[in-house]
Amino acid sequence: MKCPFCESSIEEAVFAESQNFLAVYNLAPILPGHSLIITKRHLDSVLKLTDHELSEMAAFSRKITVLLLKTFHADAFDWSLQENEAAGQTIPHLHMHIVLRFQGDFKNPGDWYPKIKNNCNGFLDSDKRKRLSRTEMKQIVTKLRKEFDAMGNSD
Amino acid sequence: MKCPFCESSIEEAVFAESQNFLAVYNLAPILPGHSLIITKRHLDSVLKLTDHELSEMAAFSRKITVLLLKTFHADAFDWSLQENEAAGQTIPHLHMHIVLRFQGDFKNPGDWYPKIKNNCNGFLDSDKRKRLSRTEMKQIVTKLRKEFDAMGNSD
Repeated sequence: MKCPFCESSIEEAVFAESQNFLAVYNLAPILPGHSLIITKRHLDSVLKLTDHELSEMAAFSRKITVLLLKTFHADAFDWSLQENEAAGQTIPHLHMHIVLRFQGDFKNPGDWYPKIKNNCNGFLDSDKRKRLSRTEMKQIVTKLRKEFDAMGNSD
Repeated sequence: MKCPFCESSIEEAVFAESQNFLAVYNLAPILPGHSLIITKRHLDSVLKLTDHELSEMAAFSRKITVLLLKTFHADAFDWSLQENEAAGQTIPHLHMHIVLRFQGDFKNPGDWYPKIKNNCNGFLDSDKRKRLSRTEMKQIVTKLRKEFDAMGNSD
């Protein structure tokens, strides 16, 4: 199986980058703003990052979270990382979910979680979940890139 | 409501610390090893940490994850952070869940997540979930403290 996060087509979903990480808009978001932080190079675990990269990942994730909260006028967020198959990791390429939350978005606050199971297959299998159209994706990514540039992207 | 993470009784559950963070064993673990990384001072959001603290949190979380994986012979793990009420945060004191995972622990890999909802109430309300006995807690915490000391705790 090819890694979907290493395919060149991922570039259309990338809206921000740091030295070693990319922020990728989810092709099949479970809620508006749902994005992923992924490593640029193929690597399966947060345990394999250097100390510097780990620190960079945390800072970049927070910066992107601030950007998303503002752009989508969200009330809250979840960060979620699954490591290894037994934890539900379906693609062996490090990725952390940032899921924006909105007051009353689900009946129970925890209902979003089962929805991200296999969500990454959105990158593989369009039957599994409603994907954004190419036009919708382009609009969102363009807007987020602009907002990211406005924040300054020196780190 | 008093913050349960600011009560002195939390000390019995603390098995490791860094400059600004504590590792706390969950009084009502959903799976063996389930722990929390919390700030020492009362603070509700990862967005309010200094850059240095954020980096420290990431490094400390990873170190504790390595410790837990080894001690409990786990196969995998989840990191989960909820920020604000709309995301299911029930206690307004920054805390990240580290949930160890074991092959076949749940029927579906995602079944753990609903279980952490209100799990923190384990600190408040013993009716909600089976709590460890004081003896069990002491045994686990003592073992983890020893393992942590053996790792070196200079950071």
